[in-house]
Amino acid sequence: MSSSENRKPALKGQAFADIDTPALVIDLDAFERNLARMADAIKELPVRLRAHAKTHKSPVIALQQMALGAVGACCQKVSEAEILVDGGVPNVLVSNQVIGKQKLARLAALAKRAEWVGLCVDSEMGIAQAEHAADQEGVVLNALVEIDVGAGRCGVPPGEPVLDLAQQIEDNPHLSFAGLQAYHGSAQHIRDHVERRSAIDATIAMTRDTVELLKIHGLECEIVGGAGTGTFEMEAASGVYTELQAGSYIFMDADYARNKNEAGGPFTTFEHALFILTTAMSRPGENRAVVDAGHKAASIDSGMPTLFERPGLTYEKPSDEHGVLLITGSNKPPELGEKVLLIPGHCDPTVNLHDWYVCVRGLRTDDAIVEDVWPVAARGALF
Amino acid sequence: MSSSENRKPALKGQAFADIDTPALVIDLDAFERNLARMADAIKELPVRLRAHAKTHKSPVIALQQMALGAVGACCQKVSEAEILVDGGVPNVLVSNQVIGKQKLARLAALAKRAEWVGLCVDSEMGIAQAEHAADQEGVVLNALVEIDVGAGRCGVPPGEPVLDLAQQIEDNPHLSFAGLQAYHGSAQHIRDHVERRSAIDATIAMTRDTVELLKIHGLECEIVGGAGTGTFEMEAASGVYTELQAGSYIFMDADYARNKNEAGGPFTTFEHALFILTTAMSRPGENRAVVDAGHKAASIDSGMPTLFERPGLTYEKPSDEHGVLLITGSNKPPELGEKVLLIPGHCDPTVNLHDWYVCVRGLRTDDAIVEDVWPVAARGALF
Repeated sequence: MSSSENRKPALKGQAFADIDTPALVIDLDAFERNLARMADAIKELPVRLRAHAKTHKSPVIALQQMALGAVGACCQKVSEAEILVDGGVPNVLVSNQVIGKQKLARLAALAKRAEWVGLCVDSEMGIAQAEHAADQEGVVLNALVEIDVGAGRCGVPPGEPVLDLAQQIEDNPHLSFAGLQAYHGSAQHIRDHVERRSAIDATIAMTRDTVELLKIHGLECEIVGGAGTGTFEMEAASGVYTELQAGSYIFMDADYARNKNEAGGPFTTFEHALFILTTAMSRPGENRAVVDAGHKAASIDSGMPTLFERPGLTYEKPSDEHGVLLITGSNKPPELGEKVLLIPGHCDPTVNLHDWYVCVRGLRTDDAIVEDVWPVAARGALF
Repeated sequence: MSSSENRKPALKGQAFADIDTPALVIDLDAFERNLARMADAIKELPVRLRAHAKTHKSPVIALQQMALGAVGACCQKVSEAEILVDGGVPNVLVSNQVIGKQKLARLAALAKRAEWVGLCVDSEMGIAQAEHAADQEGVVLNALVEIDVGAGRCGVPPGEPVLDLAQQIEDNPHLSFAGLQAYHGSAQHIRDHVERRSAIDATIAMTRDTVELLKIHGLECEIVGGAGTGTFEMEAASGVYTELQAGSYIFMDADYARNKNEAGGPFTTFEHALFILTTAMSRPGENRAVVDAGHKAASIDSGMPTLFERPGLTYEKPSDEHGVLLITGSNKPPELGEKVLLIPGHCDPTVNLHDWYVCVRGLRTDDAIVEDVWPVAARGALF
């Protein structure tokens, strides 16, 4: 809505203490360390980052990722791609099926004002519809075949079905075969490192075999894309993948923090950098506080938000605009009116509930200040 | 965002078949029947409807409810109240605690441009902050004491603690004691009718005793407010409640449909009138289709969406922008590109994910048409 401009929870230059709640807060120091850690982790490897913009929905952030080496961005919807391109991101892959004439007409039109635009296909209909739209606009769309590498979501099985679709793409004058979309989503959250590696080893093997089959038939994969924050080091080291689509690493949600690393310890490669700032608006008992962030401020699809640096407090029983903090062992129960920081259970759908990022410098210091306020530009971009 | 105007899933006058997906669709015929049924159900009773606008977040809908007799609207946040008042709703209660100087300053300013504005308090601090804000603006704010009638969320216990706060309100020159907020949220979803009635009988008894205690001390309750879609007939018949805050009755989500009526049968007082229209974008196997509506289009906090008039299909395993339809016994599995209607598990947070209502006339006919497109005006109004 146009009025969201009037509903910013904070203004640039304000003190941290003056942010209205609930607010989506970025700890800029931790966020920038996360960006740098990912760039460093892959700089010696033959892979590029194509960070997933479905996490942040912000061209401002995508451009920061590109400044550190990312080749471009990926996203799930055409409307997200439009907002990224129009926000200055020249190279965008829709890492998803695009079915429907309106969506494809918009994607083909977008290809005229971007350097590179791609989409995924896993059906003859997807290819035929994309060809028609590209023909109408007089453009060539880059098409990746989505391959089901174990996630059981979209995609065709590895091997011959991929070859069949790749050859069909090449037979269409307004489509260009650009490679494979080979993302194993459900493997990202396998807690045990050995089990996670085992799942991704199988994924890599299927992908390698398919790349080789295509090569035998004269089809080169410019892009072999996939990987998320939970497994990116495995795909990066595979020699098969050329692009990594990790997104959550910039913010690190509570759910990814439950993964274990190779040594069996916590997954600490990245820091929590995104929070929901919320106020205690009721203290109806010694062991309870009620805060002003509920389902409409924090998604619970991957578990409840957790408390940041407040041991002895748990967030429970959210309703639309309320969350209950259960006080079990805290030395500092929140006072009425006090603000606390929640770590989202799942960052991506939580970000999508907010219009603004409140970007704080020095969050863990007494001089914390709002350095900037960025729009969640593709919030609600569903089609 | 200002660009949401450019991201409407449909335009007025379009055929149903041309709506882009995922889209939030109102079946106007069913919706209007629901509005009328509620108005009819209470027209002979000494209660008024103050329908909850946290469900629809739309002044357009609130005004339709008022045209059928509702006294005004209630909502959970000051920013929702602002959008309702500025959209033409003159009488708005924030049925929630309001803590924080920015929020209260805005609420006091709002009182100048509305006929009636109220808020809830359950603490001395809440009263002191509201008094300060009203004093600064030179207005009188109406304050209800929130009483915990069994839900275990906000509110003070019945009896003396309520009297104490009510007297404090009356001692403040810029506050006016307006009555009680006595809503039992968790009782709304008790499936068994006898158990639900038992919970609400206790709620009514506590509320009645408190109203009488206040009366003895010279304090009249202009408003005794509460009730939701699951229990409104009980509060309506109590003789104690004066205002009903039911909201979901206009849309009827899948979760409320799991309640049982007095005869043990399904709760069919209201019809499903809100849907997520979604497209099958992948058919990766005989028993699966993948649709383009996931966590960012439909909330799952009260269970998965269900399929409308498509027996043999279930919606499962959503990710951010995907949902899997499992095909168990349908005679008509969805084809690639086919659209199906989902009934939201929980309407309120689902509505909050969308910018637009696509209002369809004749949804269940071959001539279904987009009669109007209404903004979800208070979408994202969190503070």
